[in-house]
Amino acid sequence: MTRKRKNMTAKLNADFDAQLKKKAALVNNVLRRLLSEQKHIDKNLIKAIRYTLEAPGKRIRSAIVLWCCELIAGKINHNAKIAAAAVEMVHTYSLIHDDLPAMDNDDFRRGRPACHKAFGEATAVLAGDALLTLAFEILAKQIKDAAVAVKLISELAQAAGPAGMVAGQMADLHAENTKGSKKILEYIHTNKTAKMFQCAAAMGAVCGGANTSQYNRLCEYGLRLGLGFQIADDILDVCGKSPHLGKTAGKDAKAGKTTYPSVVGMKKSKLLAKKTTNQAIAALKPFGPKADILRNLATALLERKK
Amino acid sequence: MTRKRKNMTAKLNADFDAQLKKKAALVNNVLRRLLSEQKHIDKNLIKAIRYTLEAPGKRIRSAIVLWCCELIAGKINHNAKIAAAAVEMVHTYSLIHDDLPAMDNDDFRRGRPACHKAFGEATAVLAGDALLTLAFEILAKQIKDAAVAVKLISELAQAAGPAGMVAGQMADLHAENTKGSKKILEYIHTNKTAKMFQCAAAMGAVCGGANTSQYNRLCEYGLRLGLGFQIADDILDVCGKSPHLGKTAGKDAKAGKTTYPSVVGMKKSKLLAKKTTNQAIAALKPFGPKADILRNLATALLERKK
Repeated sequence: MTRKRKNMTAKLNADFDAQLKKKAALVNNVLRRLLSEQKHIDKNLIKAIRYTLEAPGKRIRSAIVLWCCELIAGKINHNAKIAAAAVEMVHTYSLIHDDLPAMDNDDFRRGRPACHKAFGEATAVLAGDALLTLAFEILAKQIKDAAVAVKLISELAQAAGPAGMVAGQMADLHAENTKGSKKILEYIHTNKTAKMFQCAAAMGAVCGGANTSQYNRLCEYGLRLGLGFQIADDILDVCGKSPHLGKTAGKDAKAGKTTYPSVVGMKKSKLLAKKTTNQAIAALKPFGPKADILRNLATALLERKK
Repeated sequence: MTRKRKNMTAKLNADFDAQLKKKAALVNNVLRRLLSEQKHIDKNLIKAIRYTLEAPGKRIRSAIVLWCCELIAGKINHNAKIAAAAVEMVHTYSLIHDDLPAMDNDDFRRGRPACHKAFGEATAVLAGDALLTLAFEILAKQIKDAAVAVKLISELAQAAGPAGMVAGQMADLHAENTKGSKKILEYIHTNKTAKMFQCAAAMGAVCGGANTSQYNRLCEYGLRLGLGFQIADDILDVCGKSPHLGKTAGKDAKAGKTTYPSVVGMKKSKLLAKKTTNQAIAALKPFGPKADILRNLATALLERKK
């Protein structure tokens, strides 16, 4: 890469990071407001919920909701803000339960002790349950158009449930310490990660009022983006460092997890991550330059160090 | 009680039991159908879900949904069947998570080993998560009137979430091995149990197309019924036997739980259960004899041996 090209890439990355941070700040504000409006949450529970939900996450999934809505509608509307918060709640619940001793047993998350380390296992189980339920409550209560609310709830429940994220977590646990195959790996990654990315894109599309063709394109983008993200995550688990990751590095290998590097090797994993990212970007073609931020997101997720 | 009166009471009880069994059979059929329609549930997960969901529960909460709809609409409609199934899914999820070692640590549920004993802790966490999510998915997908679907989702999420059932579970855990007070006890029972009973009645009312006054009466009935049920449950934990209960008797006392007998004594607990049941029955006054089945339910829950 020439020096000029390198400088341009660095500038683009810095611009993208600034835009992602702006979206994260927006989502954080919505989450804070929604929690403060919930006056009757148990006082011990709210501490654990705030601790995990307000920890410095990257808010990638909720940014996807906001950017997809912006792409279609030209602006971020109230529904997209609520949908983004709901997606973040479901993502955070999944991290809390995933980190439990009986699950992945991780003590370290978003750069601080995991919920169960800070508040105990029982509180972590309940904080996860609470966030999952709350996500559906805010969608049902805060979105005035009932047809839109039902569509969003349907998308989120399907992506997060037993034929989606929970299925992926289950398969992930079952694949531990087995040889694993590419087929199982694809099943795990599609369900555990990619469906929630796809769901975020779909929810943004619904909030923006997308037509069927736009909706399908954004779903395809989300799915490929999620797959690429997870392959990159597997690679980072091998190459990354804990302080950067905000979670324990080298954990997957240690736990005998089925990952891309363990099944197809590092070189092929990197190629596959690149290919999947390109597929995500290709899905955006009809949107033209208006979708550049989503393209930059795909590239940033591929090249990330954490 | 005279012999004639005793015979009449026995006949009434047998009639009521038969009617409850009929409703349980209906709900079981709906649950089975809904699960068989979900083609993409992970194959290891579906075993654990079926094991717990299809275990012989009494289906009281779902019967409340059906009877309240029947009271208002004169018949059980499609929406009430879906709502009843959703309530049962949420109730079952709460039992699975409640029985976990980090929570109440119960090995025995619905007359068989608890989910985590039969399938391991990780699967139990995920089966609970799956059922909770699935409840919202079926409400969003199977109820055609979006406004009704949103109302039902809103009721269920509010009753089950961090200002409802989860709050009660949290307070219950925190009250362990403390002296406890009547105030804390009421908070736990209202949130942990009564709000889900209230929600079942409210969902039945919504499905039946109740007006505001009917809705409020049924909510009051459900709340009082749930409180009475929980006081009776506390009493049974002291006086009941495990094979009848389908769970471990004497467990609450052993775990240092805050219960009515432990805080106000057995005699006062029995009086309070009776009083609360009478309040539930009083709320049904405007409905006349049409609400007899709900009155019989209140009496049956007070007098139950399991």
